Parts: sequence; structure tokens; C-alpha cells
Amino acid sequence: MKSYTNEEIMAKAIALAKESATSGGGPFGCVIVKDGKIIASASNSVTKDFDPTAHAEVNAIRSACKKLKTFDLDGCLLYTSCEPCPMCLAACYWAHIDAIYYSGNQDDAATVGFDDRYIYRQIDLKKEKRSILMQRILPEQGMVPFQAWKENEDKIHY
Amino acid sequence: MKSYTNEEIMAKAIALAKESATSGGGPFGCVIVKDGKIIASASNSVTKDFDPTAHAEVNAIRSACKKLKTFDLDGCLLYTSCEPCPMCLAACYWAHIDAIYYSGNQDDAATVGFDDRYIYRQIDLKKEKRSILMQRILPEQGMVPFQAWKENEDKIHY
Repeated sequence: MKSYTNEEIMAKAIALAKESATSGGGPFGCVIVKDGKIIASASNSVTKDFDPTAHAEVNAIRSACKKLKTFDLDGCLLYTSCEPCPMCLAACYWAHIDAIYYSGNQDDAATVGFDDRYIYRQIDLKKEKRSILMQRILPEQGMVPFQAWKENEDKIHY
Repeated sequence: MKSYTNEEIMAKAIALAKESATSGGGPFGCVIVKDGKIIASASNSVTKDFDPTAHAEVNAIRSACKKLKTFDLDGCLLYTSCEPCPMCLAACYWAHIDAIYYSGNQDDAATVGFDDRYIYRQIDLKKEKRSILMQRILPEQGMVPFQAWKENEDKIHY
């Protein structure tokens, strides 16, 4: 089996990003590896797919999970052409990714108008200070679904 | 046209969450409204769909965008049975959602093992302190895709 270095895999992620940037996608690419083998690779398809969540990392995570028939990517390494935005970083936590390798950073992305730093700063603010209005309603019913979940003996934890 | 109150729409999101909790999904539901009309509704399907990104909010955003044939949900209001995790909150920023209404909060979710607070705290840490290893490689090539993007005159901003 061909074994790749970290730099070789990253070069693939960067090549995907460059290709995407010139063919209707966003300028981001991602590769996921498990046990030295490439499981999934993807680029950003937000505008192509009418899906604001279709970042390269999210697309690659979905693809890897579909391939491995699991919602748990424990043991997987993620290589992304640019430091993940908060959505993709949190997706890595939910997917139990082992390690994230990145080439560009938030400052690089900002030079062409992708200001992930803004969203990082927004998340760090108290709810009432964020630019998106956040308001709690029916707080007394918030536990209803969780109570049903607690009582469901067939539930699958994730 | 039937007009809904905020509480009526939230009750629908909570009902979706409760239904999901007892039928193989996660205990979360979400409804998206534009101009007083329900555009999309969804529940969490992480384990059903083998997709760790398939939270109720992300599913609803994807569904609304598909329906409206856009990647921009400007003018839309999102009603979620529980305060969004960082992935879903950032997805709301990327989708340009106007307002987020929620019923349960992070503390409610934690009582049944959904510790979104952990991911919020992780995002707030410096990269080297996070539990997922984050390492920069080939930093000198990080701008390559962005340069290609900059030069592409047909690019679609999002």
C-alpha cells in the first residue's frame, strides 16, 4: 500500500482547493485519511450546491462517514487547505476527528474576503451582544424532548 | 395566509424534537420561517443518516436553501428546540439567518449527555491547547488557492 507523508496529503488538499477556485466552487479543499489510506476528499461547494454548510471539511466528513457507514470518524486525520472556520472545527469535534492539519490560516483567508475571524469573534460574545438576534422562548418546554430521549431505551448515543 | 406566533412555531420545533427522540433520531428539532411562512423543518438525523453534521439546524438550513434555490437565507428566522451548538451557530452566520429563537439551553442539553459547552470551550482555546491536535503544514502554499480565486473573474461570492 502506498504510504503518504503529511505534506503529500496536504498538497492534494491544496490542489483540490485550487481546482475548485477556478471551476465554480469555493477555494478550499480537504482530504480525510484513516490508517494511511485516503478515505474521502472534497472541495467547497456552497454556491454550486446551494448549501451554505457545504464547506470542504463538512463535505469530506460527510463523504468519509458515508463510505465507512458510521457517524464516528475516530482514528481519522483531516487535512484542509485552510484553517477550519468554527462550523467546520465544531464538526470535527462532533465527528471525533483525531487531528487537523491545515496550510492557510484565518489571515490568509481574510485577504480574499473570507472573514472566518468575524464568526470566531461572534461565537465568543455573550448571546445578547451577537449580530444575529438570539432570543429564548418557551424555556419551560425545553426539557420535553430531552425527557423523551432519556426515557427511550433504544436510543443511539453519538 | 395563516400567521404564526413565535410560540406556535417553537411548539412545532419542540414537537419535531420530541418525535425524533422516540423514533431513532436525536432529540432536536428546527423550523425556518420567511415572511411568516414555514420554509423548512427538520430534526436531528446524525445516527440515522451516518452524518455527524446532520443536526436539526443544519438539516433545516440545507432544506430551506434547496427549496429557495439559494445559499443565502437573508430574511429568514430560525426556531430551534435547543440553543445551537457552535457548528450550527456558525452555520447560521454563513447562511445569513436574521434571528435565532431557542427553547432549551446548553445546560438542559448537558443533563442528557449533549455537552455542547465542551465544544464552545474548546473553540475558545488557543489551537495548541485544544484536545484535537492542530498542526500547520506547508504554510507557504496556503495562499495558492486564494490567489487562483482572486484571479477568477467568474467567481460567485457567498
